[in-house]
Amino acid sequence: MTDSPEPPASLTRPPSGLPAVRAAVDEVDAVGFVHVGGRADPALRYLTRVDGPDRETAVVFLSGDKTADPEAVYCVPNDVIGEAAAFEQIEWGDEINRRVAGRGPTTATGQQIVRLLDDRFGESTGTLLVPRTIPHDTAVFLRQAGYELQSTPAVATARATKTPAERDCLRAVQEAATAGMACAEAALVASEPIDGELMVDGRPLTTERLRRRIDAELASLGVEPAASTRIEAPTAAADRLPAGEPIRIHLAPRGPHGYRGHLTRTVAVDSRGGWERRAFIAAEAGLRAAARQLEPGVDVSTVETEAIAEVGAYGFAVASDENAMAARAVATADGIGLSAYEFPVCGSEGELTPGSVIAVETGVDDPERGSVRLGTLFGVSTGGAQTLVEYPSSLSPVDRLDGD
Amino acid sequence: MTDSPEPPASLTRPPSGLPAVRAAVDEVDAVGFVHVGGRADPALRYLTRVDGPDRETAVVFLSGDKTADPEAVYCVPNDVIGEAAAFEQIEWGDEINRRVAGRGPTTATGQQIVRLLDDRFGESTGTLLVPRTIPHDTAVFLRQAGYELQSTPAVATARATKTPAERDCLRAVQEAATAGMACAEAALVASEPIDGELMVDGRPLTTERLRRRIDAELASLGVEPAASTRIEAPTAAADRLPAGEPIRIHLAPRGPHGYRGHLTRTVAVDSRGGWERRAFIAAEAGLRAAARQLEPGVDVSTVETEAIAEVGAYGFAVASDENAMAARAVATADGIGLSAYEFPVCGSEGELTPGSVIAVETGVDDPERGSVRLGTLFGVSTGGAQTLVEYPSSLSPVDRLDGD
Repeated sequence: MTDSPEPPASLTRPPSGLPAVRAAVDEVDAVGFVHVGGRADPALRYLTRVDGPDRETAVVFLSGDKTADPEAVYCVPNDVIGEAAAFEQIEWGDEINRRVAGRGPTTATGQQIVRLLDDRFGESTGTLLVPRTIPHDTAVFLRQAGYELQSTPAVATARATKTPAERDCLRAVQEAATAGMACAEAALVASEPIDGELMVDGRPLTTERLRRRIDAELASLGVEPAASTRIEAPTAAADRLPAGEPIRIHLAPRGPHGYRGHLTRTVAVDSRGGWERRAFIAAEAGLRAAARQLEPGVDVSTVETEAIAEVGAYGFAVASDENAMAARAVATADGIGLSAYEFPVCGSEGELTPGSVIAVETGVDDPERGSVRLGTLFGVSTGGAQTLVEYPSSLSPVDRLDGD
Repeated sequence: MTDSPEPPASLTRPPSGLPAVRAAVDEVDAVGFVHVGGRADPALRYLTRVDGPDRETAVVFLSGDKTADPEAVYCVPNDVIGEAAAFEQIEWGDEINRRVAGRGPTTATGQQIVRLLDDRFGESTGTLLVPRTIPHDTAVFLRQAGYELQSTPAVATARATKTPAERDCLRAVQEAATAGMACAEAALVASEPIDGELMVDGRPLTTERLRRRIDAELASLGVEPAASTRIEAPTAAADRLPAGEPIRIHLAPRGPHGYRGHLTRTVAVDSRGGWERRAFIAAEAGLRAAARQLEPGVDVSTVETEAIAEVGAYGFAVASDENAMAARAVATADGIGLSAYEFPVCGSEGELTPGSVIAVETGVDDPERGSVRLGTLFGVSTGGAQTLVEYPSSLSPVDRLDGD
């Protein structure tokens, strides 16, 4: 049985994010909060910390009053209530009663929630906080029952600032991403350029073959590839990887706690230097420039702008028009957590806080010659930013597993 | 480089499911259809057949009239429009114009859709078909722009009947699931029972260690474990797998086309026979009974009822009450496709059609002695049902890789 001898860094489950919801409810004196979603919904994961069933489920928070303590209810279909042992262990936070409620096969989630609210509040109604994207049918059920709905960004905003426990989760999944990248580099080092194509064991090294090799490594470390491993080369004929040209490798696995990694490297086997060498050095400089900008109070759009300017200083266009055929400096800086893209993001709630974790990617995209990018995760603190997990970058692949 | 020499069965991309939407729009003389969702949304995948970005995207269908042909628009944020090469290859169906539309960082999806509709219809409005779960904020934008919303189950209903191309996708991912199960059985055969616990290479075989081994096999075959590999044993102390007790292994990988597999086996190393042997034989009989019921016109609830009765005939309770502490016969029969749970399902649109693909699971759950279940996929045709991919079942694990 060939498996990795040790699991990656401890994957503790962070506490529920419900306190942010409770604070929002208290602030506007609402009677409660409702969130509905499917298994992949990151807000549900943030609130419950369990990996729910492949079904529509809901979290309902009922505020406390003179007659009752605050209560959080996890609403699930009856036929998955067998998983209730896991659901009933949800730790919602201090002094919040918990309950798992089932619904029959012909009951809509919205109907289930209305019954639950009516049981608690009887004829009286009030304001319910909901995310803007609550399913329309649930919203209609709640309105018709007499509740006034008020949209709240409370969960998305709370998710933007990571606790130390959340940062540990991101670090753990990012460590697995670095192992996946080391595996990719080792495979490329072991490949043999023949007639401009990379061969391994006498067969062409295709993007699909390399992707499966990386994904198997990620899975063996206990994380999901999350259908997010991308391998791109400009002239890969029939997906065969070329020698002497930049190969971009992007990994964004998902850990067992739901948190995402982000690691991008660009390598070239037998590079002739020249363009891709210059682009690589520009990408490295761009990443450093971005890191210098990352501090509380700065907007991520500033980070992007500065990084693009730095890459451009190496002789690449910084045009922001949408001419997809032009080679140009690129940079992205966005929040990452239970989703690969979450606050802070450019254009909306972009301000960094102590606790932000940002996926930064910089480099040059050229429709002819390829894409040379480097990307990694930074944790922002009062003192500035730190790379969450270090991983070397070099244009020529290196077998970093050698000696393992 | 240790990778599998051959890829699994060809994974062709089935055609877009948009024709079902077009028919629904034509039937009620609506002006169009709108669907909004995230990357994991199975209906978006069904309509576009591309694995979208980790963002909110939308499909908008505009019906044709005297002045314009019908058109399908894929709405994405501007900053992922770089992936447009893939998006612009979406084949929506015969004579449907296609377009990819971007939106700026401060524009909501609903606003983007309203602009698009206004460009086409000007001041005139009409009925728009939407799924019942369309995000509430989008629904509000559309209503305020003057459109009347009408809920349609068109996509969910169309997804219930699989085309031959879709069945091929399900077969391909299910083949990967059988390889994962063979890998699990081989690991269990290679384990050594010491003091009631299974050991491999001198270390305890934990559920996590076995899960990683299976998931690496799935990933090496090009499918996602989808965080759905579950290994359960009744008395697994600190997740260490026990000798002589039933170990239930459930796999539900996701293929590169998004389709899901479902395979469940229960094995025991050095079983003493008795209870779990009887439960295993009952589960096998239940699965056969279910298969006999699977034909067009029958409701999946009948399939479940008959299978439970058959399992019960081997001396197990068939009580349907929710006393979780009672041992009892269990059976589920639900549609599977781009989601692990979709029409036909018990309680709603449960009728089988030629083209249904059903995940059936039967067996006995006993809170004390464990869960003995067998599960697999059946394809329903006019003549009855066939197992989509055969895989043997035996209570004692067998090394089926031997000789590979």
